[in-house]
Amino acid sequence: MTSIRDVARLAGVSPSTVSRVMNQTANVNEEKKQKVLWAIQETGFVPNELARSLYKKNSKIIGVIVPSIDNPFFGELARVIEEEAFLNGYRLTLCSSNHNREKEKANIQMLTRLKAEGIILMTNDETLQEEIEKCNLPIVALDRQIASGNGVSYIHADHYKGSRLAMKHLLECGCKNIVKLREPQVYSSGRQRFAGYVSVCKEYGIPVQYIDCQYDYEDGFRVAEQVLLKYPDVDGILANNDMVAIAVYKVLKKRGYRVPEDVQLIGFDNIAFSHMILQELTTIEQPIKEMGKLAVKAIMEYGQAGKIEQEQVLDVTLIKRETTKERKGLS
Amino acid sequence: MTSIRDVARLAGVSPSTVSRVMNQTANVNEEKKQKVLWAIQETGFVPNELARSLYKKNSKIIGVIVPSIDNPFFGELARVIEEEAFLNGYRLTLCSSNHNREKEKANIQMLTRLKAEGIILMTNDETLQEEIEKCNLPIVALDRQIASGNGVSYIHADHYKGSRLAMKHLLECGCKNIVKLREPQVYSSGRQRFAGYVSVCKEYGIPVQYIDCQYDYEDGFRVAEQVLLKYPDVDGILANNDMVAIAVYKVLKKRGYRVPEDVQLIGFDNIAFSHMILQELTTIEQPIKEMGKLAVKAIMEYGQAGKIEQEQVLDVTLIKRETTKERKGLS
Repeated sequence: MTSIRDVARLAGVSPSTVSRVMNQTANVNEEKKQKVLWAIQETGFVPNELARSLYKKNSKIIGVIVPSIDNPFFGELARVIEEEAFLNGYRLTLCSSNHNREKEKANIQMLTRLKAEGIILMTNDETLQEEIEKCNLPIVALDRQIASGNGVSYIHADHYKGSRLAMKHLLECGCKNIVKLREPQVYSSGRQRFAGYVSVCKEYGIPVQYIDCQYDYEDGFRVAEQVLLKYPDVDGILANNDMVAIAVYKVLKKRGYRVPEDVQLIGFDNIAFSHMILQELTTIEQPIKEMGKLAVKAIMEYGQAGKIEQEQVLDVTLIKRETTKERKGLS
Repeated sequence: MTSIRDVARLAGVSPSTVSRVMNQTANVNEEKKQKVLWAIQETGFVPNELARSLYKKNSKIIGVIVPSIDNPFFGELARVIEEEAFLNGYRLTLCSSNHNREKEKANIQMLTRLKAEGIILMTNDETLQEEIEKCNLPIVALDRQIASGNGVSYIHADHYKGSRLAMKHLLECGCKNIVKLREPQVYSSGRQRFAGYVSVCKEYGIPVQYIDCQYDYEDGFRVAEQVLLKYPDVDGILANNDMVAIAVYKVLKKRGYRVPEDVQLIGFDNIAFSHMILQELTTIEQPIKEMGKLAVKAIMEYGQAGKIEQEQVLDVTLIKRETTKERKGLS
């Protein structure tokens, strides 16, 4: 096997010069440096453990692409994924895409070049379809489905059931005038949650009434004011997630509404913050730990077999806290 | 230069078999696989772009070790670091250590093997000293100083000044009986914040009174009850960070105290949540964006020069919100 001495001999320099070029520990004059680089190419010398590991075994890299790492839901998921990956000897390359398509594309390409074991993707944009189809790594869509879906696995909570549980709970709490904050319909999670709400409306003969709202606090704050203007008699709000519910709660209180006496409020996700705020939020729990663990497990298993298309749906739970109150005698 | 054909010839297999072994795209029988692996070693064949990039240029990997990614302060920092790294063509390998020393050690070793450009370390344990001294990568200690400090740069906000600003603000608000929640003294941030508080006490001849508290919500919740038991006449609380202040606020309200009329409260960090809760938190702002950007910049600059020891202190700002209230006529 080629040694550092072979490279040095061919380049006409000392082995320590080769080492300096490779490790960039000191300046080497440009001419010598070029000779060394040429000799390395010529001999096919593999300078370090990482390079050797490339054909000995797997890269042990899992790529994770989240929309924003400082969104608590994705932060909590990233934590679980990182812990699970570490326990299994994998490391995590993280990309917080902030809905920037070019960044997502660049990251998928970079992870492909790195020979990552797979990608856990928590963001979705239909324009990514081409990139995803070109990518030959196992991909797990976590929480949100990928538009194309070809060869992509999909792990998610039962958003449809979650919305149904939430809506039925508000009815059990005696709400007569419920407003839904409709999730962004570009995401499968949003479509499923909204469909769950609509299905209960149909079952009970209740009018469907909603206002569109993004998944973030700022939009929740803005939309809450609209709800009060458009539906002054609202007595129940089904928020699209916990961060939005926290914003809605603040607007309600600032405007003098009592929660849950005047308006009942329910979130979705059960992020840690939902129980840290003053009045703890009733919400639908997504099994964040289980979702993260399953995603890592899927990458590890698929790594052997290549692309696999599989759907895993995890159960959700209603967590009753202080922003809703059941009324006796109602079904 | 060695080609895939040379490897195939030496192994006595077809080039496509070599390719299959390297890319793990299909099963190859164990005997052939072993021959191929042996031939790769023997010829020193460098199979892909990544391996070549190892001596051509830098790895473009920045390692980031945070105590916990789902802590909003570190989540916000990680987001800034990731964005800044991406803009400069770097990728981020993330470790959420959860105060696990073995995990931190393993990650430092792994990043060394990967030839990362440097490590941004936001956690610190004196037992890591040896590992850090052995590591020849540039290391930037962000927010918390490293015990040994040899060859390690240190970027942090002015914790000392922050505590002084907070304490003086409580005095301007007319507080007569202030209790400090003392930060963990194993962290430089904690020592500096506490020293700032003590310095103001001395200046004004005020007794130093404190209870120890970790940097997390759960401990804040527990300690808040102790404060009320031990100091029933407390009228000002200087929390060690925002998450703790949010917990203290909840306990105060549940026990019937009015904030700020009965007890004034101030946090530290200015995480996004500090203004999302119902009554917005007065706090000390750390320049999170600037800190993250400077850390990436430092790694990029040091990457050329190796280890550098340098300290950068960033300014902090008092953000007055709803949990404190200045009283006229007081200085």
